[in-house]
Amino acid sequence: MSPNSKEVEILSIGTELLLGNIINTNSQWISEQLSILGLNHFRQSTVGDNCDRIIKVIQEISKRSNLLITTGGLGPTPDDLTNEAIAKSFNVSLYERPYLWEEIKQKLSNSNLKDDSSSLRKQCFFPKNAQIINNPRGTAPGMIWEPIKGFTILTFPGVPSEMKTMWEETAFKFIKTKFSNSYSFFSNTLKFAGIGESSVAEKINDLLNLQNPTVAPYANLGEVKLRITAKAKNDLEAEKIIKPVKEKLKKEFSKFIFGENEDTLPSVLIKELAKRKETIVFAESCTGGLLSSSITSISGSSQVFKGSIVSYSNELKNSLLNISDEKLTKYGAVSTQVCEDMAINAKKKLGADWAIAISGIAGPYGGSKDKPVGLVYISISGPNNHITNIKKIFNSTRNRIEIQTLSVNVSLNSLRLILLSDSK
Amino acid sequence: MSPNSKEVEILSIGTELLLGNIINTNSQWISEQLSILGLNHFRQSTVGDNCDRIIKVIQEISKRSNLLITTGGLGPTPDDLTNEAIAKSFNVSLYERPYLWEEIKQKLSNSNLKDDSSSLRKQCFFPKNAQIINNPRGTAPGMIWEPIKGFTILTFPGVPSEMKTMWEETAFKFIKTKFSNSYSFFSNTLKFAGIGESSVAEKINDLLNLQNPTVAPYANLGEVKLRITAKAKNDLEAEKIIKPVKEKLKKEFSKFIFGENEDTLPSVLIKELAKRKETIVFAESCTGGLLSSSITSISGSSQVFKGSIVSYSNELKNSLLNISDEKLTKYGAVSTQVCEDMAINAKKKLGADWAIAISGIAGPYGGSKDKPVGLVYISISGPNNHITNIKKIFNSTRNRIEIQTLSVNVSLNSLRLILLSDSK
Repeated sequence: MSPNSKEVEILSIGTELLLGNIINTNSQWISEQLSILGLNHFRQSTVGDNCDRIIKVIQEISKRSNLLITTGGLGPTPDDLTNEAIAKSFNVSLYERPYLWEEIKQKLSNSNLKDDSSSLRKQCFFPKNAQIINNPRGTAPGMIWEPIKGFTILTFPGVPSEMKTMWEETAFKFIKTKFSNSYSFFSNTLKFAGIGESSVAEKINDLLNLQNPTVAPYANLGEVKLRITAKAKNDLEAEKIIKPVKEKLKKEFSKFIFGENEDTLPSVLIKELAKRKETIVFAESCTGGLLSSSITSISGSSQVFKGSIVSYSNELKNSLLNISDEKLTKYGAVSTQVCEDMAINAKKKLGADWAIAISGIAGPYGGSKDKPVGLVYISISGPNNHITNIKKIFNSTRNRIEIQTLSVNVSLNSLRLILLSDSK
Repeated sequence: MSPNSKEVEILSIGTELLLGNIINTNSQWISEQLSILGLNHFRQSTVGDNCDRIIKVIQEISKRSNLLITTGGLGPTPDDLTNEAIAKSFNVSLYERPYLWEEIKQKLSNSNLKDDSSSLRKQCFFPKNAQIINNPRGTAPGMIWEPIKGFTILTFPGVPSEMKTMWEETAFKFIKTKFSNSYSFFSNTLKFAGIGESSVAEKINDLLNLQNPTVAPYANLGEVKLRITAKAKNDLEAEKIIKPVKEKLKKEFSKFIFGENEDTLPSVLIKELAKRKETIVFAESCTGGLLSSSITSISGSSQVFKGSIVSYSNELKNSLLNISDEKLTKYGAVSTQVCEDMAINAKKKLGADWAIAISGIAGPYGGSKDKPVGLVYISISGPNNHITNIKKIFNSTRNRIEIQTLSVNVSLNSLRLILLSDSK
């Protein structure tokens, strides 16, 4: 095989994964690392703590790949079978490394662990010519072993913190030297709001077939992302590859793109308001604090966010936000009229440059024919006392949490667009 | 194969999984469902959006298993290849189902999506004798298809909410009828607050080795669960197996157990306050709306929750909650004195039976030697004007979101314990 076609697989070992007791975060973390190293990673497998099944999978993988990363099954209990299964897969025996046993006893005496140490002795057995991966955060070492020419196995414990430290201190360098090509992958993610995944994908059909860089769309509730990935020798070369595609996308989608990489709608708004030295407050009804929480989840929000009134009951809409009983009776709490007053009065009472008010029906109860579940009013009041009123009817299949989340997203994105058109 | 040895596998399809862009939560959720159904689930695989590789894995699985659950690759974009790959795996063609196309157009016209619908047409193509799994929360349907005798495939979109609804509404019953053995697994989950996972596990070491029922601990941020699982022919038999263990646990942990199964701290509190016909309001500083949001995420919260003041700035602590400037200067916003006043004044001003106030330092900035990041004050004011003040210092390794989440949990659990000791 040419060095360019070296293939890597991940094998997660643990019955708790098959029972759904835990989420496989290790695979995601290692996958990300393999991306950074620019390796060809085409397949992942998960099996339980069963020696025969582990052997079967390892033998399959040894026939089609060059590097196997395993996690789990290195501990002291009877269902920790990884080393045994790997040795059996290639008909070799395990031998004790006495110095590892000394190390483990040393680690135990340094810690407060009251473990009966004899069971840990199992962790010192490895194939004869395996190289040990030190485990600075635990007692179970891993190994680097090439059982047959062109196929190498690296083993890690299932405990994420141990696995990551061993990867960073030993494995990363080994893999980079032995398996990484001279190029790596570099990514740049553009983030969209106010447009659906399929609309984005349709407009850039040509770009989705590019080879270098590749362009791939991802979607979450109310958020679409395009990831541009370049295969390059270094940052500079990657930037050159990514730049023209990024420029094209920015031109095509202009204001639908709210940010890049780690940006979120709240983080982008906080940055923009801070730049303008302007402050913001909220009056929330159906979102019940979620809008405030989305802003205050970001460190630095206190620069621009002063506070909110969550007026969930009509009584508090009246007493805290001065919405008259007449208006509440005539139009109902879920109406442009009330929502607009909530924004205007919140801005005045809480003393800020901007105010967003949200009133709607998050469901699943409380809807009517005229005002169905999913109907949401949003009002934004700005420094010049100009008011923007938005009416949304979210799809009736949306649940309560989704309607609340989408309402927050639409509010934040609407403010972003207002700030854009009113840029200072 | 005997009906008892029917084997199920999960195949996750999506390059974003191999790149480490997203965590595979779908596999965990489906694994849990398969456990509940008592099915033999021995292996999981993940492949990217590559037709040849998907075909290869599906053909392998079809030779060793009876049921394959796939997630991902059902969408409208060119890299959504699941249906095509499945058909090619068994040398059949895909045919359009015109009624599905009508349904999709209907769904689009009901929503505000301005998506150009033509790309969605792809989602209407299925093998001739496949049964459709309706997707009430999205546009991409799944299918149930038996391409060869003894091997059935069920397909689901990668979007978790769509996948789960389709599973619950269609797939669960199909699998239970066709693939489940004469016995099933029945679970009952006890939920704990105010106690750590290791403390729970230590006290019940004997129970962790039981065979039927089994007892397994799980932990999330600020929440510990014990799942008691019985293997039984029916509900009644399962209840008999579970009951003695459950009773023992309830006796051992008494008030540390806040609920069962779907219960959450907010849902349990809403139920209890509704029973007592009492109302609640909040004054939030460092949690910035998260406490309010945790309550209003639950349908029915309007029965007891009236609203909140999120007084993020000191200015609003003064103007909305009447905290005197002297107090803010003398003790600082993060102090028992200010937090207590926030609770008392919120209760008075917003007019409720109960008020919770939270003030703290969520970080990562703003900490000092005297008041480190992680320091949080909580005050609870009740109907008899009795005040409970709590001071917490969360571990310095906790990030902002964790400190906010743990503060909300401690607040809710403290109120729960007060209500318990003051039961009506």
